[in-house]
Amino acid sequence: MGVQQKLEEALQHIFPGAGRAYGSSRTDTGVHAVGMVVHVDVPAVGLRMPVRKIPLALNAWLPEDVRVVEARRAPGSFHARFDAAGKQYRYFVWNHPVMNPLLRNRAWHVTVPLELRSMRAGASLLLGRRDFRSFAAHHSYEVVDTVRTLKRLEVRKQGPLVTFTIEADGFLYKMCRGLVGTLVQVGQGKFDAGSLPSMLEARDRRVAGATAPAQGLVLWKVFYKRGGGRPGSSSPERDDVADS
Amino acid sequence: MGVQQKLEEALQHIFPGAGRAYGSSRTDTGVHAVGMVVHVDVPAVGLRMPVRKIPLALNAWLPEDVRVVEARRAPGSFHARFDAAGKQYRYFVWNHPVMNPLLRNRAWHVTVPLELRSMRAGASLLLGRRDFRSFAAHHSYEVVDTVRTLKRLEVRKQGPLVTFTIEADGFLYKMCRGLVGTLVQVGQGKFDAGSLPSMLEARDRRVAGATAPAQGLVLWKVFYKRGGGRPGSSSPERDDVADS
Repeated sequence: MGVQQKLEEALQHIFPGAGRAYGSSRTDTGVHAVGMVVHVDVPAVGLRMPVRKIPLALNAWLPEDVRVVEARRAPGSFHARFDAAGKQYRYFVWNHPVMNPLLRNRAWHVTVPLELRSMRAGASLLLGRRDFRSFAAHHSYEVVDTVRTLKRLEVRKQGPLVTFTIEADGFLYKMCRGLVGTLVQVGQGKFDAGSLPSMLEARDRRVAGATAPAQGLVLWKVFYKRGGGRPGSSSPERDDVADS
Repeated sequence: MGVQQKLEEALQHIFPGAGRAYGSSRTDTGVHAVGMVVHVDVPAVGLRMPVRKIPLALNAWLPEDVRVVEARRAPGSFHARFDAAGKQYRYFVWNHPVMNPLLRNRAWHVTVPLELRSMRAGASLLLGRRDFRSFAAHHSYEVVDTVRTLKRLEVRKQGPLVTFTIEADGFLYKMCRGLVGTLVQVGQGKFDAGSLPSMLEARDRRVAGATAPAQGLVLWKVFYKRGGGRPGSSSPERDDVADS
């Protein structure tokens, strides 16, 4: 049973007759989310509960691996998915001959040493407003515009842990994992960083690199326009020092 | 079945007739270890295997939640526990009204906001060569000298994640958890930071604060004297940026 269904069951306990839970993103099996935003319509009687009490009430009904961090009232027109102005994902790679047991199912285990400099050079060439068709799964670009604005693509290393921070106004299906998989192959020397612009131009999934496995990917934050339905970002962190 | 027993079973597959596995530390149930050092005597025939191949050979027999990161040859006199010159533990606290599901069983969930400044003030008063009897479990000080040198006790905060870095030449039973439990109570305003020296002086477990739960504690590194049986430290990280 997925997270959405578990949340909808909990909502029915607290707000009988509540509508469906609409998430900001649909994540594949194995992908984690720490900053997911969800909206739900509740019956008018539900508004009697103080908003600050809603997370604890829902968490009492949710399994331990799903937690509601915060609740806010939103205008009736607010939509968690369609109003999102941008998203940040993080992707974790454990780059060491031996996997870290504490990161099983949380990071991609890459044993070949990765060259940080070439991955960073490649990442910088992907920034901006571009057609990311070459990095997304096939069925996503049969129906939609495949131009997105990649605002941030950083690669950091702390010991064997390599962290990709990926921010865009929107993402195509499996686009994050295509970007990371290709950059990791750049770091292994399989592709030259300079070949990335031509991969973009080809607009063909077959020219780009591998798709990184799902379990290293985390939906980190969702951004909404200030003055829109829901101000600010969804990060559960008050002060993300690692970013500064 | 404990980690030691799993390791000894794997060793019997690779080195039939190998002796017992002696760890640098005995960790309670729920305590994690990323930098544990173990020594084992293997039959002379076992020395034919290149040392660098030993981790992968053992990992093939170990369950996924136990990993051997590195193997080195040591003098026959080397003892992982008795030759240890110091250890570093880390303790993780998730300080937020709602627990982070990704840190279940990895961090202590403290909902009351913690005052970083007072915890740091308290930590600085505990440094140095002192009798830590008040912070250790009873049965540890019935038999041993309870004086230890606390070399480092740092408190950092990144968003809701509070990390204690605790380094000493040795630790009494449950001493780390006693130090963290008491500092967390300082951070909650239950004790004044200035009261910690008198807690040390009392040499009585009943005067200090709570024992923090096991699941937030990680044995991070073990230090050995250079020129001793095993040089350097046991950290699996090549470059611990977070420390610098």
